[in-house]
Amino acid sequence: MGSFPLNAWYAAAYDVEVRQALFPRTICGLKIVMFRRSDGGVSALEDSCWHRLLPLSRGRLENDQVVCGYHGLVYNAEGRCTFMPSQETINPSACVRSFPVVQKHRFVWVWPGDPALADPAKVPDLHWNDDPAWAGDGKRIHVKCDYRLILDNLMDLTHEAFVHGTSIGNHAVAEAPSVVTHGNRFATVTRWMSDVQPPPFWAGQIRHARAYTGQVDRWQIIRFEAPATIAIDVGVAPAGSGAVPSGDEPGDRSQGVNGYVLNTITPETDRTCHYFWAFCRNYSLGEQRLTHELREGVAGIFHEDEIVLEAQQQAMDERPGQPFQNLNIDAGSMWARRLIDHMIGKESQGQRTIPLRSVA
Amino acid sequence: MGSFPLNAWYAAAYDVEVRQALFPRTICGLKIVMFRRSDGGVSALEDSCWHRLLPLSRGRLENDQVVCGYHGLVYNAEGRCTFMPSQETINPSACVRSFPVVQKHRFVWVWPGDPALADPAKVPDLHWNDDPAWAGDGKRIHVKCDYRLILDNLMDLTHEAFVHGTSIGNHAVAEAPSVVTHGNRFATVTRWMSDVQPPPFWAGQIRHARAYTGQVDRWQIIRFEAPATIAIDVGVAPAGSGAVPSGDEPGDRSQGVNGYVLNTITPETDRTCHYFWAFCRNYSLGEQRLTHELREGVAGIFHEDEIVLEAQQQAMDERPGQPFQNLNIDAGSMWARRLIDHMIGKESQGQRTIPLRSVA
Amino acid sequence: MGSFPLNAWYAAAYDVEVRQALFPRTICGLKIVMFRRSDGGVSALEDSCWHRLLPLSRGRLENDQVVCGYHGLVYNAEGRCTFMPSQETINPSACVRSFPVVQKHRFVWVWPGDPALADPAKVPDLHWNDDPAWAGDGKRIHVKCDYRLILDNLMDLTHEAFVHGTSIGNHAVAEAPSVVTHGNRFATVTRWMSDVQPPPFWAGQIRHARAYTGQVDRWQIIRFEAPATIAIDVGVAPAGSGAVPSGDEPGDRSQGVNGYVLNTITPETDRTCHYFWAFCRNYSLGEQRLTHELREGVAGIFHEDEIVLEAQQQAMDERPGQPFQNLNIDAGSMWARRLIDHMIGKESQGQRTIPLRSVA
Repeated sequence: MGSFPLNAWYAAAYDVEVRQALFPRTICGLKIVMFRRSDGGVSALEDSCWHRLLPLSRGRLENDQVVCGYHGLVYNAEGRCTFMPSQETINPSACVRSFPVVQKHRFVWVWPGDPALADPAKVPDLHWNDDPAWAGDGKRIHVKCDYRLILDNLMDLTHEAFVHGTSIGNHAVAEAPSVVTHGNRFATVTRWMSDVQPPPFWAGQIRHARAYTGQVDRWQIIRFEAPATIAIDVGVAPAGSGAVPSGDEPGDRSQGVNGYVLNTITPETDRTCHYFWAFCRNYSLGEQRLTHELREGVAGIFHEDEIVLEAQQQAMDERPGQPFQNLNIDAGSMWARRLIDHMIGKESQGQRTIPLRSVA
Repeated sequence: MGSFPLNAWYAAAYDVEVRQALFPRTICGLKIVMFRRSDGGVSALEDSCWHRLLPLSRGRLENDQVVCGYHGLVYNAEGRCTFMPSQETINPSACVRSFPVVQKHRFVWVWPGDPALADPAKVPDLHWNDDPAWAGDGKRIHVKCDYRLILDNLMDLTHEAFVHGTSIGNHAVAEAPSVVTHGNRFATVTRWMSDVQPPPFWAGQIRHARAYTGQVDRWQIIRFEAPATIAIDVGVAPAGSGAVPSGDEPGDRSQGVNGYVLNTITPETDRTCHYFWAFCRNYSLGEQRLTHELREGVAGIFHEDEIVLEAQQQAMDERPGQPFQNLNIDAGSMWARRLIDHMIGKESQGQRTIPLRSVA
Repeated sequence: MGSFPLNAWYAAAYDVEVRQALFPRTICGLKIVMFRRSDGGVSALEDSCWHRLLPLSRGRLENDQVVCGYHGLVYNAEGRCTFMPSQETINPSACVRSFPVVQKHRFVWVWPGDPALADPAKVPDLHWNDDPAWAGDGKRIHVKCDYRLILDNLMDLTHEAFVHGTSIGNHAVAEAPSVVTHGNRFATVTRWMSDVQPPPFWAGQIRHARAYTGQVDRWQIIRFEAPATIAIDVGVAPAGSGAVPSGDEPGDRSQGVNGYVLNTITPETDRTCHYFWAFCRNYSLGEQRLTHELREGVAGIFHEDEIVLEAQQQAMDERPGQPFQNLNIDAGSMWARRLIDHMIGKESQGQRTIPLRSVA
């Protein structure tokens, strides 16, 4: 069984990465070349000439068409060959694969599987990333690990106490109980910490936005959307100010500060991935400097994870077949992996298959 | 089926590379140590001591014999052991393999296959490289690709329009028809472009040598000699000056300028090769500066190919089993590969085999 | 058959390398983390968390316990888990493997095999390294070769003539006969060179310590202790001063200078090793400067071997299956390899096996 499903939308690039130029990237083991057309849309083609395999990204973009850099074959935005050197008749089979593309929530989403199943309504929900009620920004990181290790990492935030002790972690996180729920595509881990001391990061945010210092009620509501997207509702409010939900009552967060950590991870190979993230907030919306500070601050925190994740992948590579052991804290990540395995299992069971020119 | 025949002469070094010193090089997957003897001849031995495998090239040359750098075993120029430490009797089986060598046309040619078949008359014809009627020089490049990709590249010069647009390429090359002929060891691609604008390189040459500016008749006559040598007869003459052959008439090139691009490519491994080339001309013979300029100019052009060829090899490695598609322009390279495959096929069909100590 | 036995003491570190901090090292293919406890003893644990495999050496040492750097699991000095985040009950199977450790002769010895067989009396004899009658010091070198190539190298010192001609080698070594004896765990090569010119190294030592210049009687008595330790008794005395043993008489070395080259080599993987060595002398004991000079001088000599050994390993990797040929000089190393093979053979024949979490 592979490690990722193909019939899914994966973030292939941040919106700003794709300009009117040839932009190569490997996703799900497939070498792809992307480019922005003059109509603003994005095309994604297999990055390999039909003739002699040279990466098309080595050529040039000319009038929304791709010219191969070796013998000059030309492909249109749908991947069909429109010119061959020294011959007038063009072989009708001469084309490279074209991938469905959707631009949404500031990402360019590509569907590496069966194009007939590529329903734009299935793009994961990361709307906070371009919602005017929220402000924020993010980055892409290339991480040398199985994308699922990042999902594990995000589904269990007790590691904050040990990996991120100087910013967002303290022992309250490791001690507070969490509740896990799940559906067919979603799994949610909810943790409320009542009347706790805020960690350095949140102490700074609530002091800045609400001029408040003191004990807080803190929440982390982690929502996984299969196969590779996690939106985390995080924040703190003055202790006892009503933020904690009670029964069916949602709680009043108006005196607190709220952020969303948006994460979508795209396998590059079985052992490497593209990690797209953003941090959005619902306070101090107009402060560009704060947006910049938060993005760089979160980047620093994620770099601490990156070191751990790559060391973990290397340890796994050195011990093929060595199983993971599970603790109570792993309930959320175990559900995420179960939902992913279900998607992969469905694909391998006699679903309609398509010819893939995948890279090794 | 392997990618190269063994019963063939391969250029192992440029003449100036081999001095009275141990010179290691891998050809056809075989680690070889070469050295010039005091009689001016060149010896080529297996580069691995019979005793403990240390590369002999780590030792030293002493009186036309090789002394191993570990335990001091001595081998003569034919590879026979003539000294062992702390013992008087020398094991008669103690020897390393010796390879047939011929020096011709400024190259040191080595025969990696069955020595009994090593006929010096079969050395490929690159006589322009030391013919007083021609002047020129060349280089060796190490290229990380299957040697046949370079043959493909040279057998179809339409790529000049797309890879070498600033020097020797223009659309005339991609548009002009070519004619392919072949024999048992040779394949020839002939392209005449009549009354065309010369590309920058040739415009400069004919202006320099003949003080001529204007339209030209241009020719490219590519002759492949199996398994790995290509001599290309190239040049331009004033349009209509009689250079174009007519029927059996060879044409009068006396008002033009003529060069030969000499190429012989030696597999190092299945995926890397040594590319030996030279550019010789029949005009301005005494101008050393021109020789220098042409060699460096051609080196720059070939570097453009090198980038494409290595990217192509990498694309192939990423897509094992992915076939090439062929266009009309590939007729010449397809013949070259057929002649190579024929040589390889003959070797694998019950020909006399020899023990090879080949490297992985 | 593997290349090394597991039921043996291997030097894992020089005493000074292991402090009160987490110190990772791979021995016999096993990733191990060592640390010095507050009682001065050394613990050696498997360097991989039971939970998610992260190397424990990425965490921190706290009160003689190891805290994992990802989720904070704590292990005591015996490898048993004593804390798990967010849960009170600790899985009784939660532990990492602990290795027997002995500190002796300035090395930390680890037993990678069955702990029940780890008898401290079997630690190899390198007592010169902390005997007050001897003075000296040494180093650890990481060498990219099978550890047995170093044993071969040390069991046959004729190579000194060809590899170390500027220091300890001259033709006398290659010409003098040697005698090989062996037992179940030991093999000894004895070479006496009578009335010879001393090589530069020994000429310097005997002039410095005994104010003597002139011909010497020289000895090299190489004692191998399976699987990976070699102590070499080396020295020179004025020619004819009685150092040469006669029949059962041990000889009188009192006018000479005597050193011991101590060597113990620990496989890291099949193709890399840790080479621990020291040079001890019985003269000029109080001269710190001489200790320093000798250590650096010997380090320079061993570096000449390192270059040869790594080239030899590379040559072997390029020629899988290519056998070594043996000369008379190889008698000692052949016995050493036979004793090693005997140990490996015993382990693979239905000896009690233990679960190993070995790295690839």
